[in-house]
Amino acid sequence: MHRTHTCGDLRIADLGKTVTLSGWVQKSRDLGGMTFIDVRDRYGITQLTFNSDDDDILRAKARELGREFVIKVTGAVIERSSKNSKIPTGEIEIKVSSLDILNKAKLPPFTIEDDTDGGDDIRMKFRYLDLRRNPVRENLVLRHKMAQEIRRYLDEQDFLEVETPVLIKSTPEGARDFVVPSRMNPGEFYALPQSPQTFKQLLMVSGFDRYFQIVKCFRDEDLRADRQPEFTQIDCEMSFVEQEDILNMFEGLTKHLFLKVKNIDLGQVPRMTYADAMRLYGSDKPDTRFDMQFVELNNIVKDKGFPVFDQAELVVGINATGAAHYTRKQIDELTAFVKRPQIGATGLIYARHNEDGTIKSSVDKFFNAEELEKWNQAFEGKSGDLFLIMAGSTDKVRKQLNELRLEIGNQLGLRDKNKFSPLWVMDFPLLEWDEDTARYHAMHHPFTSPKPEDITLLDTHPGEVRANAYDLVINGVEIGGGSIRIHDKELQSLMFKHLGFTPEEAQKQFGFLLEAFTYGAPPHGGLAFGFDRLVSIFAGHDTIRDVIAFPKNNSGRDIMIDAPSTVAQEQLNELSLALAIKTK
Amino acid sequence: MHRTHTCGDLRIADLGKTVTLSGWVQKSRDLGGMTFIDVRDRYGITQLTFNSDDDDILRAKARELGREFVIKVTGAVIERSSKNSKIPTGEIEIKVSSLDILNKAKLPPFTIEDDTDGGDDIRMKFRYLDLRRNPVRENLVLRHKMAQEIRRYLDEQDFLEVETPVLIKSTPEGARDFVVPSRMNPGEFYALPQSPQTFKQLLMVSGFDRYFQIVKCFRDEDLRADRQPEFTQIDCEMSFVEQEDILNMFEGLTKHLFLKVKNIDLGQVPRMTYADAMRLYGSDKPDTRFDMQFVELNNIVKDKGFPVFDQAELVVGINATGAAHYTRKQIDELTAFVKRPQIGATGLIYARHNEDGTIKSSVDKFFNAEELEKWNQAFEGKSGDLFLIMAGSTDKVRKQLNELRLEIGNQLGLRDKNKFSPLWVMDFPLLEWDEDTARYHAMHHPFTSPKPEDITLLDTHPGEVRANAYDLVINGVEIGGGSIRIHDKELQSLMFKHLGFTPEEAQKQFGFLLEAFTYGAPPHGGLAFGFDRLVSIFAGHDTIRDVIAFPKNNSGRDIMIDAPSTVAQEQLNELSLALAIKTK
Repeated sequence: MHRTHTCGDLRIADLGKTVTLSGWVQKSRDLGGMTFIDVRDRYGITQLTFNSDDDDILRAKARELGREFVIKVTGAVIERSSKNSKIPTGEIEIKVSSLDILNKAKLPPFTIEDDTDGGDDIRMKFRYLDLRRNPVRENLVLRHKMAQEIRRYLDEQDFLEVETPVLIKSTPEGARDFVVPSRMNPGEFYALPQSPQTFKQLLMVSGFDRYFQIVKCFRDEDLRADRQPEFTQIDCEMSFVEQEDILNMFEGLTKHLFLKVKNIDLGQVPRMTYADAMRLYGSDKPDTRFDMQFVELNNIVKDKGFPVFDQAELVVGINATGAAHYTRKQIDELTAFVKRPQIGATGLIYARHNEDGTIKSSVDKFFNAEELEKWNQAFEGKSGDLFLIMAGSTDKVRKQLNELRLEIGNQLGLRDKNKFSPLWVMDFPLLEWDEDTARYHAMHHPFTSPKPEDITLLDTHPGEVRANAYDLVINGVEIGGGSIRIHDKELQSLMFKHLGFTPEEAQKQFGFLLEAFTYGAPPHGGLAFGFDRLVSIFAGHDTIRDVIAFPKNNSGRDIMIDAPSTVAQEQLNELSLALAIKTK
Repeated sequence: MHRTHTCGDLRIADLGKTVTLSGWVQKSRDLGGMTFIDVRDRYGITQLTFNSDDDDILRAKARELGREFVIKVTGAVIERSSKNSKIPTGEIEIKVSSLDILNKAKLPPFTIEDDTDGGDDIRMKFRYLDLRRNPVRENLVLRHKMAQEIRRYLDEQDFLEVETPVLIKSTPEGARDFVVPSRMNPGEFYALPQSPQTFKQLLMVSGFDRYFQIVKCFRDEDLRADRQPEFTQIDCEMSFVEQEDILNMFEGLTKHLFLKVKNIDLGQVPRMTYADAMRLYGSDKPDTRFDMQFVELNNIVKDKGFPVFDQAELVVGINATGAAHYTRKQIDELTAFVKRPQIGATGLIYARHNEDGTIKSSVDKFFNAEELEKWNQAFEGKSGDLFLIMAGSTDKVRKQLNELRLEIGNQLGLRDKNKFSPLWVMDFPLLEWDEDTARYHAMHHPFTSPKPEDITLLDTHPGEVRANAYDLVINGVEIGGGSIRIHDKELQSLMFKHLGFTPEEAQKQFGFLLEAFTYGAPPHGGLAFGFDRLVSIFAGHDTIRDVIAFPKNNSGRDIMIDAPSTVAQEQLNELSLALAIKTK
C-alpha cells in the first residue's frame, strides 16, 4: 500500500498512529543531528523527522533526498515541538521509521513555489511542473468546482446535457473554422464547431425543451492574450421562452455560482441597453465597478471658437474624481496613452477643479471661468476633480474615451479584482456594417431574431434594427451572450438574404435548419457563457490561459508536446492531400 | 408567457385552475360536436377539448391543426369523464378557451410514435424528428443522468475533472488519427486525441492525484456497427495506487451507477485471468450471463482414428444444455453459421444426449458408446443436452467456438438484456504479435506496465509477458479497460525499444513524457470506460448509435447536415493544402 493518509490529513488527534504517506519532497533542512523534510501532495504538506540518534543510516538516506523526489515513508505521528499554525497539519510531524524512494527527480528548471522564478516560456514547456504549484493547481480545482456546480444547478432546473458532434460541417461564413480531412471521404472535410449553435436549435425542434452542455469549441484565428484556439462554452438553450425567462434563468445560475463558490451575494443584475452602454461608457462591455460615466458636452462647448470642439461630431469627457493632483507629466502620459496607434486619438483636453475652487483648463484661451463652471456642472465636479475631454467622430471618440476611462480606473485603483459588478447589456443591433466586405454582418449570428417592431426597418435602415440579443458582462468582460432565435423559415430566409446569401447558398449551408423549421419549431432562445473567462474572473486572473490545464501559446502551439507538427507523406496520401506551402 | 405548466404537470388537484400549455399536437380526434387533441412536450401529454357548443369558431380552428403543429392554449383544468390511467395527467383535461398556432408543421416523413414506420436512413436524415420519439429521447435522458451520477460520485471521491486539449500531436503509431491543418503553422497539423492518455499521465506527474474527464475522443477507422468516428470516454487516473485500488474504485463506481440509475445491486464483480477467459470462453470479453464454458477434449478424443480430431491442436466443445431437441436442419444451420467466411471453421461435430439416456454423435463411426460416455462426463451432460465440438489450431478454434457459443446463447434466449453480468478480465498479455507488420504491438498501449516478475521474459519470450492490465466486461461487451502505467523513464524506453521504436523516434514522439518521468513521477494507473457503450448497455441497445444524439453513419457521414463536405479553394490556400485525389 502506498499510503494510509494523504499529506493533508493528519492532526493532533492522530498522535501515536503508525501511518504511511507518499508524496514529493518540498524541502529539507538539517538541524544538529536531525533532518526535517516537508513531504507534499495535492492535499497538503506534512513534516517528517529523521534523527541520527535513532537510525543513522536512515537519516543519511534522508539527507540524500533532492527536491521533488517521490518518496514513501512509514512512521509514528508525534507532536511537534515548534508548531506551525499556517498549515492544518502544523501540530504534528512523522517520526520516520522507513523510507522508500519511489522515483528520483532532476532539479526542476524553476522552483516549485507559489512565487516561482520561472518565466512564461519555461513554465509552458514544463507545464506539468508548473501545475505542481499551488496557485496553478488551485485555478483548476476552482474550474472543477464551478463545472460541478453549474451541472448540478442546471440539472435541478430540468436541463439535459446533450453531447453534440465535434466533427461537423464547414461553413463559408465561418472563415475561421478548423477543418478535418476525412480519409473515408476523399476531398471532403469536417469542421470543428465554433459553437454548437445549430445543433442546440435542432434539439429545441426535437422538443428537448432545456438543453445545456459544457463543451469545447474551436476557432482558428490570430490569438490575443485572452483567446485560445480551443475554448470551453457553457452552452444553453430553452424552448417556449421569452427574453425575460432566459435572463432570469441565467442570472439565477450566475448568482448561484457566486454564492456557492465565492460566498458572494451578487444581488440583482442591473440592465442597460446597448445604446446606453455605448453612450455612457463607449463600450458594449462596460466595467461598472466604478462610475465615471461619459458626459456629453456638445451643448456647452460648441461655438466658443475652439476648432477641435467646433469641428467634432462629439465632445465627451469623464470626471476623474479626486485626480486633480495629477501632475502635468502624468497628464502628458495620459495624452500619449490615447495617442498610441492602438487608440489613435489626436489629443486630450483637461480641466482641473482645484482645491481653492478655481477651475483651470488646458484651453483657457477659449473658455472663461463662467464657461468652465458649466463644464463643472455637467461633470457634477467638486474640488479635487480632474475632467478629461476628447473630441471627434462619435463612434471613434467613444472607443477612445473608453480606453482612457479604463486606464484611469486602473491608475486610481478602482478595478478591484475582489469586487464583482455584473451587467446585462440588451437590445444589441441585429446587423453591423463591415467596412472590409462593404456589407452587413450579423452582430451575434445569423439565427438571432430581430425585435418584431423593428422588422420593417430591415429594408430601409438595416443598421437600426435591434435584436433580441443580450450579453452578460462582469467587470468589463463579456462573460456570456445570447438571443431569442428565429424559429420561422421565412424570417430566417429573409435574414440570410440580408446577410448576402443567395437562396442557393443558404440552402446548401443551412438547408437542414430551414427544413427543420417547417416541421414544428417552437419559439426558443438561449445563451452561451465563455467558461474559461468565467473561471478567470472568479480566479482574479486577466487571461484565460491561467485557468486552462494545457494552454497553447500565441502562435497556437503547445510547446510542451511540440504540436502542431509535420505528418508523414503516407498519412497525407491516405487523406488525399498535398502540401502547398507558399514560399515568401 | 408561453406556459404556466408543462404538458406533464397537471393532476386532479389542479381542477379549476386556468392554465396555459405549449407543445406539439400528438394526435387529434373528433367525436360528435367535440374535438380532442393530445398536446405533447418532453414532460408528458395532456388532453385538450374543444366543444362546438361553447365556441364553434375555436373548435373549427382546432380541427385544422395537423400533427406536430406547435400550439399554445389557455383553458380550465377539468375532470375527464373517461380517465386514462396510463398517463400521469390522465385524470384531467383542458377545456380550451384560446388557441394560438406558434408554428405550423409539414407532415413528418415518418410517424412520431414509439413504434415508428420510418427506416434507418430517413430517421438519420431527419434525426431532429426521430429525437422527438420517446424511446430515442429516453436514451439521451438516461445518458444525461448517468453522466451526472458519474460526476457526482467521482467528485465525492476527490477526483478532479480536468479538460485536456483536443488539438494535440499526431503520432506515427496512431495511424488512425484525425489530423487538423494549422493555418498559423503552414505544413503542420494537430491531431485529435484517440484518448487523453499522455495528458492524464502528465497530470499525475503534476500531483493531481485523482483525475477524471468525460471526454470526446476520435478515431478515423473503418466503422462497424458499434464504432463511431467520435466517441465519449470516462477517462480516469489515480496516483499512489496498485491495481487492487483501481479495481475497487471503479467497481464501486459501476455498482453505484447500477444502483442509482437502474436500482440494481450488481454484487461483487467476479475476476478472471485473460488466460482463463480465452480457455473457458475463447474471448477476452466473455458474456457470462450464461455458463456454457468450453470443455477441452484432447485427452479423451485423440487417437481414436478420427483424423479431424487427431490432427487438431485443440478439440473443444460446449454443452448446449437442453438443446437435444435441435433438429438435423437446425444443426446444419449451426454448421453453416460456423463455416461462414467471417468465422471460417471447417465443420462442427455434435452429440445428442437423448431423453432415453443414449448418446448419439455425428462421428459414431469413430466413437463407441463407452467413448461417448467419457464425452458426457467431460461435459457434465444429462438427458436433453447437445454437445457441440470444434477442432483446429488453438487460437482459431477458440474464437470460432466463442461465436458459436454466443449464437447458441441467443437461440436459447440466454442473453437477457435485463440481466447484467459484469466481469473483470485481468493479466492481459503486454504484447501481441502482429502478422501484418511482423512485430509485436502493445496490446493496450505503450504506457502499460509489465508485471515485475515477467520483465525478464521481455527479451526471451515477449509474447508471454503479462501486463498489469484489466478490462471491465459486462454481458460480453468491453465497457472499460486500463492498467498500471510505467512511471520510470528507463522501463518506458525499454518498452518503446521492444515496440520497434528507435531511440530517436521515441524521443521525437514521446520525449516530453520521458522527460516528465525524470522530474518525480509517482506510481500511477487508471482506467477508461467507453461511455457510449456503458449507456447502450444500460439502455438495452446493441449499438452505441442509439445513445448518441447526432451519430454518423457507417461511412462516417452526418447525413442530416451533409458532412463532411468540400471546402472552398481559398480555404485550402489559407491552409497551404492542395487536394491530391487518386483516380481509380
